[in-house]
Amino acid sequence: MPDFAEPLARLIAEFKHLPGIGQKSAQRIAFHVLRASKLDAEHLAQAILDVKDKLGLCEICNNISESDLCLFCRDTTRDQKTLCVVEEPHNIVGIETTRQFSGMYHVLHGALSPLRGIGPEQLKIKSLVERIGAGGVEEVIVATNPTAEGEATAVYLSKLLKPLGVKVTRIGMGIPVGSDIEFADEVTIWKAMEGRREM
Amino acid sequence: MPDFAEPLARLIAEFKHLPGIGQKSAQRIAFHVLRASKLDAEHLAQAILDVKDKLGLCEICNNISESDLCLFCRDTTRDQKTLCVVEEPHNIVGIETTRQFSGMYHVLHGALSPLRGIGPEQLKIKSLVERIGAGGVEEVIVATNPTAEGEATAVYLSKLLKPLGVKVTRIGMGIPVGSDIEFADEVTIWKAMEGRREM
Repeated sequence: MPDFAEPLARLIAEFKHLPGIGQKSAQRIAFHVLRASKLDAEHLAQAILDVKDKLGLCEICNNISESDLCLFCRDTTRDQKTLCVVEEPHNIVGIETTRQFSGMYHVLHGALSPLRGIGPEQLKIKSLVERIGAGGVEEVIVATNPTAEGEATAVYLSKLLKPLGVKVTRIGMGIPVGSDIEFADEVTIWKAMEGRREM
Repeated sequence: MPDFAEPLARLIAEFKHLPGIGQKSAQRIAFHVLRASKLDAEHLAQAILDVKDKLGLCEICNNISESDLCLFCRDTTRDQKTLCVVEEPHNIVGIETTRQFSGMYHVLHGALSPLRGIGPEQLKIKSLVERIGAGGVEEVIVATNPTAEGEATAVYLSKLLKPLGVKVTRIGMGIPVGSDIEFADEVTIWKAMEGRREM
């Protein structure tokens, strides 16, 4: 015998599909929605629909955007000479929280992964080459993840973009700030040693 | 400058209102919805609306229900002589997972809390007294939470129901199974000592 009425069981199942939400969390959230006002539930449902209806990709950088150009590509005060390449739109959020970078972005929407059938054609690389070909960019910072796939993508981009006359740099890897060398894996420690800087 | 397009920022804000969801989780879930198919997003939104539209309270036990009577009150194979009183509908789920209890339920929708202005009138106590007054119930198991408010509610119910000629019992408290006495607080240890049973 099922423990929940059908609409509630269905909502719990829907929440369980979301990342990081297990059975218990899904139940807790579903009961929260049930207790919430009808208006609050409608706002949540509408926000979910709006995100699919109203958002597309920026025509220049492929970031998520409400209009043809995203917030960053519309902002003329940003440094047009520096281009930061990331795998996913949410990587931009991480970089923006530092409040140190004021250049432009380019979102690849993934990383090269031959095993999963993702080659250069599946990523937004063609438009990146076109942007750089159009001139004005002096440095491309490759901020793909420090994983096998992100590294492969970085190497590929480096070989592809350097002949276009731009400086291609890779984000630094090493021990996270506030962490302890004791807890770092050997590859990270090696990257930290390799990336040492004069004091 | 905002980091997210407006619909995305709004969805993140909506998810942050849900219990156990912080900024990072809300972002991760919102980006997941954004990447999901439009159909999946519509299913999620519809499930949220349905839970508010299609569910009400069972006329007998106040559990959440799609129809006038809930799954448990409709089930004539259950033991009508034993009534388990819980604070919230989701407490029933926990008890049902044990697969050991086959009696009926009664949901109070809260616990007595003078500080928050919750007295007997704010809880589903009147209908509980009426159920017992109608006869057929032999034992009332008070399964309110082992908190100050749940305990106060249990004591109140015990005084109210015993004169009606039913046996009133309280769920056992003690060290959780699989846990260690070392990690239990002194009140729990005391309750465990008090609730000791002959081997």
